[in-house]
Amino acid sequence: MNPDLAWAVWSGERQRRIEDVLSRLLPNTDLAPALLSQAMRYAVLDGGKRMRPLLAYAAGELTEAPPSLVDAAAAAVELIHAYSLIHDDLPCMDDDTLRRGKPTCHVAFGEATALLAGDALQALAFGVLAGGRLPDGAAACALLAEAAGVHGMAGGQAIDLDSVGATLSPSQLETMHRMKTGALIRAAVRLGAACGRPLTGTEAAALDCYADAAGLAFQVVDDVLDVEGSAATLGKTAGKDIAQGKPTFVTCLGLAAAKRQAASLREEARTALAPLGRAARRLAELADWIVLRTH
Amino acid sequence: MNPDLAWAVWSGERQRRIEDVLSRLLPNTDLAPALLSQAMRYAVLDGGKRMRPLLAYAAGELTEAPPSLVDAAAAAVELIHAYSLIHDDLPCMDDDTLRRGKPTCHVAFGEATALLAGDALQALAFGVLAGGRLPDGAAACALLAEAAGVHGMAGGQAIDLDSVGATLSPSQLETMHRMKTGALIRAAVRLGAACGRPLTGTEAAALDCYADAAGLAFQVVDDVLDVEGSAATLGKTAGKDIAQGKPTFVTCLGLAAAKRQAASLREEARTALAPLGRAARRLAELADWIVLRTH
Repeated sequence: MNPDLAWAVWSGERQRRIEDVLSRLLPNTDLAPALLSQAMRYAVLDGGKRMRPLLAYAAGELTEAPPSLVDAAAAAVELIHAYSLIHDDLPCMDDDTLRRGKPTCHVAFGEATALLAGDALQALAFGVLAGGRLPDGAAACALLAEAAGVHGMAGGQAIDLDSVGATLSPSQLETMHRMKTGALIRAAVRLGAACGRPLTGTEAAALDCYADAAGLAFQVVDDVLDVEGSAATLGKTAGKDIAQGKPTFVTCLGLAAAKRQAASLREEARTALAPLGRAARRLAELADWIVLRTH
Repeated sequence: MNPDLAWAVWSGERQRRIEDVLSRLLPNTDLAPALLSQAMRYAVLDGGKRMRPLLAYAAGELTEAPPSLVDAAAAAVELIHAYSLIHDDLPCMDDDTLRRGKPTCHVAFGEATALLAGDALQALAFGVLAGGRLPDGAAACALLAEAAGVHGMAGGQAIDLDSVGATLSPSQLETMHRMKTGALIRAAVRLGAACGRPLTGTEAAALDCYADAAGLAFQVVDDVLDVEGSAATLGKTAGKDIAQGKPTFVTCLGLAAAKRQAASLREEARTALAPLGRAARRLAELADWIVLRTH
Protein backbone atom coordinates (compact mmCIF):
# COMPACT_ATOMS: atom_id res chain seq x y z
CA MET A 1 0.00 0.00 0.00
CA ASN A 2 1.37 3.46 -0.72
CA PRO A 3 2.11 5.44 2.42
CA ASP A 4 -0.59 8.08 1.89
CA LEU A 5 -3.23 5.42 1.47
CA ALA A 6 -1.94 3.45 4.46
CA TRP A 7 -2.16 6.60 6.60
CA ALA A 8 -5.68 7.36 5.36
CA VAL A 9 -6.79 3.82 6.27
CA TRP A 10 -5.07 3.87 9.66
CA SER A 11 -6.39 7.28 10.69
CA GLY A 12 -9.89 6.63 9.33
CA GLU A 13 -10.12 3.39 11.30
CA ARG A 14 -9.04 5.10 14.51
CA GLN A 15 -11.38 8.05 13.97
CA ARG A 16 -14.30 5.63 13.65
CA ARG A 17 -13.07 3.65 16.63
CA ILE A 18 -12.86 6.66 18.96
CA GLU A 19 -16.31 7.80 17.82
CA ASP A 20 -17.70 4.41 18.95
CA VAL A 21 -15.74 4.53 22.19
CA LEU A 22 -16.94 8.05 23.02
CA SER A 23 -20.50 7.18 22.13
CA ARG A 24 -20.42 4.26 24.59
CA LEU A 25 -18.81 6.31 27.35
CA LEU A 26 -21.13 9.30 27.14
CA PRO A 27 -24.35 9.15 29.17
CA ASN A 28 -27.45 7.97 27.36
CA THR A 29 -30.27 10.43 27.06
CA ASP A 30 -33.10 8.22 28.33
CA LEU A 31 -32.45 9.05 31.97
CA ALA A 32 -32.55 12.37 33.85
CA PRO A 33 -30.87 14.77 33.45
CA ALA A 34 -31.71 14.18 29.78
CA LEU A 35 -30.90 17.68 28.55
CA LEU A 36 -27.47 17.64 30.16
CA SER A 37 -26.69 14.26 28.61
CA GLN A 38 -27.86 15.53 25.22
CA ALA A 39 -25.64 18.57 25.52
CA MET A 40 -22.63 16.39 26.42
CA ARG A 41 -23.20 14.10 23.42
CA TYR A 42 -23.84 17.07 21.11
CA ALA A 43 -20.55 18.69 22.05
CA VAL A 44 -18.44 15.54 21.72
CA LEU A 45 -19.88 13.39 18.90
CA ASP A 46 -20.04 13.82 15.12
CA GLY A 47 -17.31 16.33 14.72
CA GLY A 48 -13.74 17.24 15.32
CA LYS A 49 -10.54 15.99 13.78
CA ARG A 50 -9.82 13.74 16.76
CA MET A 51 -6.19 14.79 16.61
CA ARG A 52 -5.59 14.10 20.30
CA PRO A 53 -7.00 10.55 20.15
CA LEU A 54 -4.94 9.89 16.99
CA LEU A 55 -1.83 11.03 18.87
CA ALA A 56 -2.69 8.66 21.72
CA TYR A 57 -3.23 5.70 19.38
CA ALA A 58 -0.03 6.48 17.44
CA ALA A 59 1.98 6.72 20.67
CA GLY A 60 0.37 3.49 21.87
CA GLU A 61 1.67 1.70 18.75
CA LEU A 62 5.17 2.77 19.70
CA THR A 63 4.92 0.95 23.04
CA GLU A 64 2.89 -2.00 21.70
CA ALA A 65 -0.06 -1.00 23.90
CA PRO A 66 -3.30 -3.00 23.62
CA PRO A 67 -5.71 -0.73 21.69
CA SER A 68 -8.44 -1.42 24.27
CA LEU A 69 -6.29 0.32 26.92
CA VAL A 70 -5.43 3.19 24.58
CA ASP A 71 -9.16 3.76 24.05
CA ALA A 72 -9.42 5.12 27.61
CA ALA A 73 -6.45 7.46 27.18
CA ALA A 74 -7.68 8.65 23.78
CA ALA A 75 -11.20 9.26 25.05
CA ALA A 76 -10.02 11.06 28.18
CA VAL A 77 -7.97 13.64 26.28
CA GLU A 78 -10.76 14.19 23.74
CA LEU A 79 -13.32 14.70 26.54
CA ILE A 80 -11.06 17.32 28.15
CA HIS A 81 -10.66 19.00 24.75
CA ALA A 82 -14.42 18.99 24.12
CA TYR A 83 -15.18 20.46 27.55
CA SER A 84 -12.64 23.24 26.96
CA LEU A 85 -14.30 24.15 23.64
CA ILE A 86 -17.73 24.44 25.28
CA HIS A 87 -16.40 26.75 27.99
CA ASP A 88 -14.23 28.70 25.51
CA ASP A 89 -17.26 29.44 23.34
CA LEU A 90 -19.38 30.82 26.22
CA PRO A 91 -20.41 34.49 26.08
CA CYS A 92 -18.11 35.42 28.97
CA MET A 93 -15.16 33.89 27.07
CA ASP A 94 -14.91 34.02 23.24
CA ASP A 95 -18.67 34.36 22.73
CA ASP A 96 -18.69 32.17 19.64
CA THR A 97 -21.78 30.83 17.90
CA LEU A 98 -20.35 28.31 15.40
CA ARG A 99 -18.22 25.21 16.15
CA ARG A 100 -17.61 22.16 13.98
CA GLY A 101 -20.20 23.53 11.54
CA LYS A 102 -22.95 23.55 14.17
CA PRO A 103 -24.30 26.11 16.63
CA THR A 104 -22.10 26.13 19.73
CA CYS A 105 -23.34 24.20 22.77
CA HIS A 106 -24.69 27.21 24.66
CA VAL A 107 -26.53 28.43 21.54
CA ALA A 108 -28.17 25.02 21.21
CA PHE A 109 -28.79 24.25 24.93
CA GLY A 110 -28.52 27.51 26.86
CA GLU A 111 -25.60 28.81 28.90
CA ALA A 112 -26.31 27.04 32.17
CA THR A 113 -26.60 23.61 30.56
CA ALA A 114 -23.49 24.25 28.46
CA LEU A 115 -21.53 25.22 31.58
CA LEU A 116 -22.62 22.04 33.36
CA ALA A 117 -21.97 19.91 30.27
CA GLY A 118 -18.37 21.12 30.25
CA ASP A 119 -18.06 20.45 33.97
CA ALA A 120 -19.51 16.96 33.65
CA LEU A 121 -17.26 16.15 30.65
CA GLN A 122 -14.18 17.05 32.67
CA ALA A 123 -15.29 14.70 35.45
CA LEU A 124 -16.06 12.00 32.86
CA ALA A 125 -12.56 12.34 31.37
CA PHE A 126 -10.97 11.52 34.72
CA GLY A 127 -13.48 8.75 35.36
CA VAL A 128 -12.73 7.11 32.01
CA LEU A 129 -8.98 7.33 32.50
CA ALA A 130 -9.16 6.09 36.11
CA GLY A 131 -11.39 3.18 35.08
CA GLY A 132 -9.28 2.31 32.03
CA ARG A 133 -7.01 -0.30 33.62
CA LEU A 134 -3.85 1.47 32.50
CA PRO A 135 -0.62 0.09 34.00
CA ASP A 136 -0.58 3.04 36.45
CA GLY A 137 -4.01 4.67 36.49
CA ALA A 138 -3.24 7.09 39.32
CA ALA A 139 -0.14 8.41 37.55
CA ALA A 140 -2.19 8.80 34.37
CA CYS A 141 -4.82 10.85 36.22
CA ALA A 142 -2.13 13.02 37.80
CA LEU A 143 -0.62 13.65 34.36
CA LEU A 144 -3.99 14.58 32.85
CA ALA A 145 -4.79 16.87 35.80
CA GLU A 146 -1.50 18.71 35.37
CA ALA A 147 -2.15 19.16 31.64
CA ALA A 148 -5.71 20.42 32.15
CA GLY A 149 -5.16 22.68 35.15
CA VAL A 150 -3.69 26.00 36.15
CA HIS A 151 -0.21 25.13 34.85
CA GLY A 152 -1.64 23.74 31.60
CA MET A 153 -4.76 24.31 29.54
CA ALA A 154 -6.84 26.40 31.98
CA GLY A 155 -3.82 28.55 32.80
CA GLY A 156 -3.06 29.06 29.11
CA GLN A 157 -6.63 30.18 28.53
CA ALA A 158 -6.31 32.70 31.35
CA ILE A 159 -3.13 34.11 29.80
CA ASP A 160 -4.90 34.16 26.41
CA LEU A 161 -7.72 36.24 27.95
CA ASP A 162 -5.25 38.66 29.49
CA SER A 163 -3.46 39.10 26.17
CA VAL A 164 -6.43 40.45 24.19
CA GLY A 165 -5.30 43.76 22.70
CA ALA A 166 -1.73 43.22 23.91
CA THR A 167 1.40 42.83 21.83
CA LEU A 168 3.19 39.60 22.70
CA SER A 169 6.66 38.62 21.60
CA PRO A 170 6.89 35.34 19.64
CA SER A 171 8.29 33.66 22.73
CA GLN A 172 5.45 34.92 24.98
CA LEU A 173 2.97 33.68 22.38
CA GLU A 174 4.72 30.30 22.37
CA THR A 175 4.58 30.05 26.16
CA MET A 176 0.85 30.76 26.12
CA HIS A 177 0.19 28.10 23.49
CA ARG A 178 2.47 25.54 25.13
CA MET A 179 0.06 25.78 28.09
CA LYS A 180 -3.26 26.34 26.29
CA THR A 181 -3.02 23.60 23.65
CA GLY A 182 0.46 22.11 23.96
CA ALA A 183 0.01 20.65 27.43
CA LEU A 184 -2.97 18.50 26.43
CA ILE A 185 -1.29 17.39 23.18
CA ARG A 186 1.76 16.31 25.15
CA ALA A 187 -0.55 14.49 27.57
CA ALA A 188 -2.23 12.67 24.65
CA VAL A 189 1.14 11.36 23.50
CA ARG A 190 2.36 10.46 26.99
CA LEU A 191 -0.88 8.78 28.01
CA GLY A 192 -1.10 6.75 24.80
CA ALA A 193 2.48 5.59 25.31
CA ALA A 194 1.80 4.84 29.00
CA CYS A 195 -0.68 2.13 27.98
CA GLY A 196 2.15 -0.10 26.77
CA ARG A 197 5.67 -1.15 27.77
CA PRO A 198 7.69 1.33 29.84
CA LEU A 199 9.65 3.92 27.83
CA THR A 200 13.38 4.38 28.20
CA GLY A 201 14.49 7.85 29.26
CA THR A 202 15.68 8.56 25.72
CA GLU A 203 12.37 7.49 24.24
CA ALA A 204 10.39 9.60 26.71
CA ALA A 205 12.51 12.66 25.95
CA ALA A 206 12.15 12.10 22.19
CA LEU A 207 8.38 11.80 22.54
CA ASP A 208 8.11 15.02 24.59
CA CYS A 209 10.25 16.82 22.03
CA TYR A 210 8.00 15.52 19.25
CA ALA A 211 4.81 16.49 21.11
CA ASP A 212 6.07 20.01 21.83
CA ALA A 213 6.93 20.63 18.17
CA ALA A 214 3.74 19.02 16.85
CA GLY A 215 1.59 20.92 19.36
CA LEU A 216 3.11 24.26 18.47
CA ALA A 217 2.87 23.44 14.74
CA PHE A 218 -0.83 22.73 15.24
CA GLN A 219 -1.36 26.18 16.74
CA VAL A 220 0.66 28.01 14.08
CA VAL A 221 -1.34 26.25 11.36
CA ASP A 222 -4.55 27.13 13.20
CA ASP A 223 -3.60 30.79 13.11
CA VAL A 224 -2.76 30.59 9.39
CA LEU A 225 -6.09 28.88 8.65
CA ASP A 226 -7.93 31.51 10.70
CA VAL A 227 -6.66 34.03 8.11
CA GLU A 228 -6.79 31.93 4.95
CA GLY A 229 -9.75 29.64 5.63
CA SER A 230 -13.48 30.25 5.44
CA ALA A 231 -16.20 29.31 7.92
CA ALA A 232 -17.34 26.67 5.41
CA THR A 233 -14.02 24.76 5.45
CA LEU A 234 -13.18 25.46 9.10
CA GLY A 235 -16.60 24.75 10.58
CA LYS A 236 -16.05 27.68 12.94
CA THR A 237 -16.02 31.44 12.61
CA ALA A 238 -13.03 32.49 10.46
CA GLY A 239 -10.95 35.59 11.16
CA LYS A 240 -12.28 35.65 14.72
CA ASP A 241 -8.99 35.77 16.61
CA ILE A 242 -7.74 38.79 14.72
CA ALA A 243 -11.15 40.53 14.90
CA GLN A 244 -11.05 40.03 18.70
CA GLY A 245 -7.61 41.60 18.90
CA LYS A 246 -5.95 38.35 20.02
CA PRO A 247 -2.28 38.03 19.25
CA THR A 248 -1.65 35.16 16.79
CA PHE A 249 1.43 33.78 15.06
CA VAL A 250 0.26 35.58 11.92
CA THR A 251 -0.06 38.99 13.60
CA CYS A 252 3.17 38.34 15.47
CA LEU A 253 5.37 36.98 12.64
CA GLY A 254 3.50 37.78 9.41
CA LEU A 255 1.77 35.19 7.21
CA ALA A 256 4.81 34.01 5.23
CA ALA A 257 7.00 33.60 8.31
CA ALA A 258 4.20 31.77 10.15
CA LYS A 259 4.01 29.27 7.29
CA ARG A 260 7.78 28.82 7.35
CA GLN A 261 7.61 28.22 11.10
CA ALA A 262 4.97 25.54 10.65
CA ALA A 263 7.17 23.77 8.10
CA SER A 264 10.16 24.00 10.37
CA LEU A 265 8.23 22.64 13.39
CA ARG A 266 7.08 19.71 11.21
CA GLU A 267 10.74 18.94 10.50
CA GLU A 268 11.58 19.30 14.19
CA ALA A 269 8.82 16.84 15.13
CA ARG A 270 10.00 14.31 12.53
CA THR A 271 13.62 14.67 13.56
CA ALA A 272 12.74 14.06 17.20
CA LEU A 273 11.23 10.72 16.20
CA ALA A 274 14.26 9.51 14.23
CA PRO A 275 15.80 7.49 17.11
CA LEU A 276 12.51 5.64 17.62
CA GLY A 277 12.56 3.94 14.24
CA ARG A 278 9.68 2.50 12.27
CA ALA A 279 7.41 2.00 15.32
CA ALA A 280 7.00 5.79 15.39
CA ARG A 281 5.85 6.13 11.77
CA ARG A 282 2.24 6.96 12.64
CA LEU A 283 3.44 9.79 14.85
CA ALA A 284 5.54 11.11 11.96
CA GLU A 285 2.56 10.91 9.61
CA LEU A 286 0.51 12.79 12.19
CA ALA A 287 3.02 15.65 12.16
CA ASP A 288 2.54 15.86 8.38
CA TRP A 289 -1.22 15.77 8.75
CA ILE A 290 -1.19 18.51 11.38
CA VAL A 291 0.81 20.85 9.18
CA LEU A 292 -0.67 20.03 5.77
CA ARG A 293 -4.35 20.06 6.82
CA THR A 294 -6.72 22.64 5.33
CA HIS A 295 -9.19 22.81 8.22
CA MET B 1 -12.68 15.89 78.46
CA ASN B 2 -16.41 16.31 78.03
CA PRO B 3 -17.65 15.11 74.64
CA ASP B 4 -18.67 18.58 73.37
CA LEU B 5 -15.24 19.98 74.16
CA ALA B 6 -13.48 16.95 72.65
CA TRP B 7 -15.46 17.41 69.46
CA ALA B 8 -14.69 21.14 69.35
CA VAL B 9 -10.98 20.40 69.73
CA TRP B 10 -11.00 17.58 67.16
CA SER B 11 -12.95 19.51 64.54
CA GLY B 12 -11.03 22.76 65.10
CA GLU B 13 -7.71 20.93 64.65
CA ARG B 14 -8.88 19.34 61.40
CA GLN B 15 -10.31 22.61 60.09
CA ARG B 16 -6.95 24.28 60.63
CA ARG B 17 -5.14 21.29 59.15
CA ILE B 18 -7.18 21.27 55.93
CA GLU B 19 -6.70 25.04 55.59
CA ASP B 20 -2.92 24.50 55.64
CA VAL B 21 -3.16 21.56 53.25
CA LEU B 22 -5.30 23.50 50.77
CA SER B 23 -3.04 26.54 51.01
CA ARG B 24 -0.03 24.38 50.09
CA LEU B 25 -1.83 22.64 47.22
CA LEU B 26 -3.24 25.77 45.60
CA PRO B 27 -1.01 27.56 43.07
CA ASN B 28 1.04 30.44 44.37
CA THR B 29 0.30 33.83 42.91
CA ASP B 30 3.86 34.84 41.98
CA LEU B 31 3.76 33.10 38.62
CA ALA B 32 1.52 33.64 35.57
CA PRO B 33 -1.42 33.26 35.37
CA ALA B 34 -1.43 35.28 38.60
CA LEU B 35 -5.06 36.41 38.45
CA LEU B 36 -6.32 32.86 37.92
CA SER B 37 -4.27 31.61 40.87
CA GLN B 38 -5.60 34.46 43.03
CA ALA B 39 -9.18 33.60 42.07
CA MET B 40 -8.59 29.93 42.94
CA ARG B 41 -7.15 30.80 46.35
CA TYR B 42 -9.90 33.38 47.00
CA ALA B 43 -12.63 30.83 46.34
CA VAL B 44 -11.12 28.06 48.45
CA LEU B 45 -9.33 29.62 51.44
CA ASP B 46 -10.56 31.48 54.54
CA GLY B 47 -14.10 30.28 54.53
CA GLY B 48 -16.45 27.40 54.54
CA LYS B 49 -17.38 24.94 57.22
CA ARG B 50 -15.12 22.26 55.71
CA MET B 51 -17.82 19.68 56.31
CA ARG B 52 -16.61 17.39 53.52
CA PRO B 53 -13.00 17.33 54.75
CA LEU B 54 -14.24 16.68 58.30
CA LEU B 55 -16.25 13.73 56.97
CA ALA B 56 -13.15 12.39 55.24
CA TYR B 57 -11.00 12.73 58.37
CA ALA B 58 -13.70 11.15 60.54
CA ALA B 59 -14.08 8.22 58.13
CA GLY B 60 -10.31 7.87 57.99
CA GLU B 61 -10.22 7.42 61.79
CA LEU B 62 -12.61 4.51 61.40
CA THR B 63 -10.12 2.67 59.16
CA GLU B 64 -7.01 3.83 61.04
CA ALA B 65 -5.83 5.74 57.97
CA PRO B 66 -2.64 7.83 58.22
CA PRO B 67 -3.83 11.47 58.37
CA SER B 68 -1.28 12.41 55.70
CA LEU B 69 -3.12 10.20 53.21
CA VAL B 70 -6.53 11.49 54.29
CA ASP B 71 -5.29 15.03 53.59
CA ALA B 72 -5.40 14.28 49.85
CA ALA B 73 -8.92 12.84 50.00
CA ALA B 74 -10.17 15.70 52.19
CA ALA B 75 -8.62 18.35 49.94
CA ALA B 76 -9.92 16.73 46.75
CA VAL B 77 -13.55 16.76 47.87
CA GLU B 78 -13.27 20.31 49.17
CA LEU B 79 -11.74 21.49 45.86
CA ILE B 80 -14.63 19.91 43.95
CA HIS B 81 -17.07 21.59 46.33
CA ALA B 82 -15.37 24.99 45.94
CA TYR B 83 -15.36 24.76 42.13
CA SER B 84 -19.08 23.90 42.15
CA LEU B 85 -19.86 26.97 44.27
CA ILE B 86 -18.01 29.26 41.84
CA HIS B 87 -19.90 27.90 38.85
CA ASP B 88 -23.22 27.82 40.76
CA ASP B 89 -22.90 31.51 41.60
CA LEU B 90 -22.27 32.61 37.97
CA PRO B 91 -24.87 34.87 36.33
CA CYS B 92 -26.05 32.09 33.99
CA MET B 93 -26.70 29.86 37.03
CA ASP B 94 -27.88 31.28 40.39
CA ASP B 95 -26.44 34.76 39.74
CA ASP B 96 -25.39 35.25 43.35
CA THR B 97 -23.19 38.04 44.66
CA LEU B 98 -22.41 36.95 48.25
CA ARG B 99 -20.70 33.74 49.40
CA ARG B 100 -19.02 32.99 52.72
CA GLY B 101 -19.49 36.66 53.64
CA LYS B 102 -17.48 37.89 50.64
CA PRO B 103 -18.33 38.94 47.07
CA THR B 104 -18.64 35.83 44.90
CA CYS B 105 -15.66 34.89 42.74
CA HIS B 106 -17.04 36.36 39.50
CA VAL B 107 -17.94 39.62 41.26
CA ALA B 108 -14.37 39.88 42.54
CA PHE B 109 -12.48 38.58 39.46
CA GLY B 110 -14.86 38.74 36.47
CA GLU B 111 -16.87 35.95 34.90
CA ALA B 112 -14.22 34.52 32.59
CA THR B 113 -11.62 34.19 35.34
CA ALA B 114 -14.21 32.69 37.69
CA LEU B 115 -15.21 30.13 35.06
CA LEU B 116 -11.57 29.12 34.54
CA ALA B 117 -10.89 29.09 38.28
CA GLY B 118 -13.68 26.53 38.70
CA ASP B 119 -12.33 24.48 35.81
CA ALA B 120 -8.79 24.55 37.17
CA LEU B 121 -9.98 23.63 40.68
CA GLN B 122 -11.74 20.54 39.33
CA ALA B 123 -8.53 19.45 37.57
CA LEU B 124 -6.56 20.17 40.76
CA ALA B 125 -8.94 18.00 42.79
CA PHE B 126 -8.18 14.98 40.61
CA GLY B 127 -4.49 15.80 40.55
CA VAL B 128 -4.33 15.95 44.35
CA LEU B 129 -6.23 12.69 44.77
CA ALA B 130 -4.20 10.90 42.08
CA GLY B 131 -0.95 12.11 43.61
CA GLY B 132 -2.02 11.31 47.17
CA ARG B 133 -0.54 7.79 47.41
CA LEU B 134 -3.88 6.29 48.46
CA PRO B 135 -3.94 2.45 48.54
CA ASP B 136 -5.79 2.51 45.18
CA GLY B 137 -5.45 5.95 43.61
CA ALA B 138 -7.14 5.03 40.33
CA ALA B 139 -10.21 3.65 42.12
CA ALA B 140 -10.33 6.81 44.23
CA CYS B 141 -10.28 8.99 41.10
CA ALA B 142 -13.02 6.90 39.50
CA LEU B 143 -15.14 7.29 42.63
CA LEU B 144 -14.65 11.07 42.73
CA ALA B 145 -15.43 11.37 39.00
CA GLU B 146 -18.68 9.47 39.44
CA ALA B 147 -19.67 11.72 42.36
CA ALA B 148 -18.84 14.93 40.51
CA GLY B 149 -20.24 14.07 37.08
CA VAL B 150 -23.48 13.66 35.21
CA HIS B 151 -24.78 10.97 37.58
CA GLY B 152 -23.75 12.99 40.64
CA MET B 153 -23.20 16.65 41.43
CA ALA B 154 -23.32 18.15 37.91
CA GLY B 155 -26.39 16.08 37.05
CA GLY B 156 -28.11 17.16 40.25
CA GLN B 157 -27.44 20.79 39.42
CA ALA B 158 -28.99 20.28 35.98
CA ILE B 159 -32.12 18.80 37.56
CA ASP B 160 -32.15 21.68 40.06
CA LEU B 161 -32.09 24.17 37.15
CA ASP B 162 -34.94 22.36 35.43
CA SER B 163 -37.03 22.39 38.58
CA VAL B 164 -37.20 26.17 39.04
CA GLY B 165 -40.88 27.08 39.25
CA ALA B 166 -41.89 23.40 39.30
CA THR B 167 -43.63 21.50 42.08
CA LEU B 168 -41.59 18.48 43.12
CA SER B 169 -42.76 15.66 45.35
CA PRO B 170 -40.64 15.09 48.47
CA SER B 171 -39.13 12.02 46.80
CA GLN B 172 -38.22 13.92 43.61
CA LEU B 173 -36.63 16.60 45.77
CA GLU B 174 -34.68 13.90 47.63
CA THR B 175 -33.44 12.36 44.37
CA MET B 176 -32.21 15.74 43.16
CA HIS B 177 -30.34 16.42 46.39
CA ARG B 178 -28.90 12.90 46.59
CA MET B 179 -27.17 13.78 43.31
CA LYS B 180 -26.47 17.48 43.83
CA THR B 181 -24.96 17.39 47.33
CA GLY B 182 -25.36 13.80 48.53
CA ALA B 183 -23.03 12.20 45.98
CA LEU B 184 -20.02 14.31 47.00
CA ILE B 185 -20.75 13.85 50.71
CA ARG B 186 -20.85 10.09 50.20
CA ALA B 187 -17.58 10.35 48.25
CA ALA B 188 -15.99 12.29 51.12
CA VAL B 189 -16.84 9.47 53.53
CA ARG B 190 -15.81 6.68 51.16
CA LEU B 191 -12.54 8.35 50.14
CA GLY B 192 -11.57 9.10 53.72
CA ALA B 193 -12.22 5.48 54.65
CA ALA B 194 -10.34 4.24 51.56
CA CYS B 195 -7.12 5.74 52.95
CA GLY B 196 -6.95 3.07 55.63
CA ARG B 197 -7.55 -0.66 56.06
CA PRO B 198 -10.11 -2.30 53.74
CA LEU B 199 -13.72 -2.14 54.93
CA THR B 200 -15.85 -5.25 55.35
CA GLY B 201 -19.03 -5.32 53.28
CA THR B 202 -21.09 -4.60 56.40
CA GLU B 203 -18.94 -1.63 57.30
CA ALA B 204 -19.11 -0.23 53.76
CA ALA B 205 -22.89 -0.55 53.69
CA ALA B 206 -23.19 1.10 57.12
CA LEU B 207 -21.01 4.00 55.99
CA ASP B 208 -23.04 4.54 52.81
CA CYS B 209 -26.23 4.49 54.84
CA TYR B 210 -24.74 7.03 57.25
CA ALA B 211 -23.51 9.26 54.43
CA ASP B 212 -26.88 9.23 52.67
CA ALA B 213 -28.74 10.25 55.81
CA ALA B 214 -26.17 12.86 56.83
CA GLY B 215 -26.07 14.30 53.31
CA LEU B 216 -29.81 14.63 53.11
CA ALA B 217 -29.95 16.07 56.63
CA PHE B 218 -27.42 18.68 55.58
CA GLN B 219 -29.67 19.77 52.71
CA VAL B 220 -32.85 19.85 54.80
CA VAL B 221 -31.09 22.02 57.41
CA ASP B 222 -29.77 24.25 54.62
CA ASP B 223 -33.32 24.84 53.44
CA VAL B 224 -34.50 25.58 56.98
CA LEU B 225 -31.64 28.04 57.50
CA ASP B 226 -32.40 29.70 54.15
CA VAL B 227 -35.77 30.63 55.69
CA GLU B 228 -34.76 31.28 59.30
CA GLY B 229 -31.22 32.62 58.89
CA SER B 230 -29.95 36.05 57.86
CA ALA B 231 -27.20 36.92 55.39
CA ALA B 232 -25.08 37.95 58.38
CA THR B 233 -25.11 34.49 59.97
CA LEU B 234 -25.17 32.52 56.70
CA GLY B 235 -22.53 34.53 54.84
CA LYS B 236 -24.64 34.15 51.71
CA THR B 237 -27.87 35.64 50.45
CA ALA B 238 -30.76 34.41 52.66
CA GLY B 239 -34.18 33.52 51.29
CA LYS B 240 -32.70 33.20 47.81
CA ASP B 241 -33.96 29.72 46.95
CA ILE B 242 -37.56 30.57 47.69
CA ALA B 243 -37.30 33.96 45.95
CA GLN B 244 -35.96 32.15 42.85
CA GLY B 245 -38.92 29.75 42.89
CA LYS B 246 -36.72 26.72 43.68
CA PRO B 247 -38.47 23.85 45.41
CA THR B 248 -37.00 23.29 48.91
CA PHE B 249 -37.79 20.94 51.76
CA VAL B 250 -39.51 23.86 53.48
CA THR B 251 -41.77 24.69 50.51
CA CYS B 252 -42.37 20.98 49.97
CA LEU B 253 -43.00 19.82 53.56
CA GLY B 254 -43.56 23.00 55.58
CA LEU B 255 -41.11 24.39 58.15
CA ALA B 256 -42.13 22.25 61.13
CA ALA B 257 -42.08 19.00 59.15
CA ALA B 258 -38.71 19.90 57.58
CA LYS B 259 -37.25 20.34 61.08
CA ARG B 260 -38.70 17.00 62.15
CA GLN B 261 -37.19 15.36 59.09
CA ALA B 262 -33.76 16.78 59.90
CA ALA B 263 -34.01 15.34 63.43
CA SER B 264 -35.10 11.99 62.08
CA LEU B 265 -32.26 11.86 59.53
CA ARG B 266 -29.81 12.64 62.34
CA GLU B 267 -31.13 9.60 64.21
CA GLU B 268 -30.92 7.51 61.04
CA ALA B 269 -27.29 8.53 60.52
CA ARG B 270 -26.40 7.69 64.14
CA THR B 271 -28.23 4.37 64.00
CA ALA B 272 -26.37 3.37 60.85
CA LEU B 273 -23.08 3.83 62.73
CA ALA B 274 -24.06 1.68 65.71
CA PRO B 275 -22.40 -1.55 64.39
CA LEU B 276 -19.12 0.31 63.88
CA GLY B 277 -18.59 1.04 67.56
CA ARG B 278 -16.44 3.71 69.13
CA ALA B 279 -14.16 4.17 66.10
CA ALA B 280 -17.11 5.87 64.37
CA ARG B 281 -17.72 8.43 67.11
CA ARG B 282 -16.42 11.41 65.11
CA LEU B 283 -18.83 10.54 62.32
CA ALA B 284 -21.70 10.46 64.83
CA GLU B 285 -20.66 13.83 66.22
CA LEU B 286 -20.56 15.17 62.67
CA ALA B 287 -24.18 14.15 62.15
CA ASP B 288 -25.07 16.18 65.25
CA TRP B 289 -23.05 19.14 64.02
CA ILE B 290 -24.70 19.03 60.60
CA VAL B 291 -28.19 19.13 62.07
CA LEU B 292 -27.61 21.46 65.02
CA ARG B 293 -25.55 24.12 63.15
CA THR B 294 -26.92 27.65 62.81
CA HIS B 295 -25.12 28.57 59.56
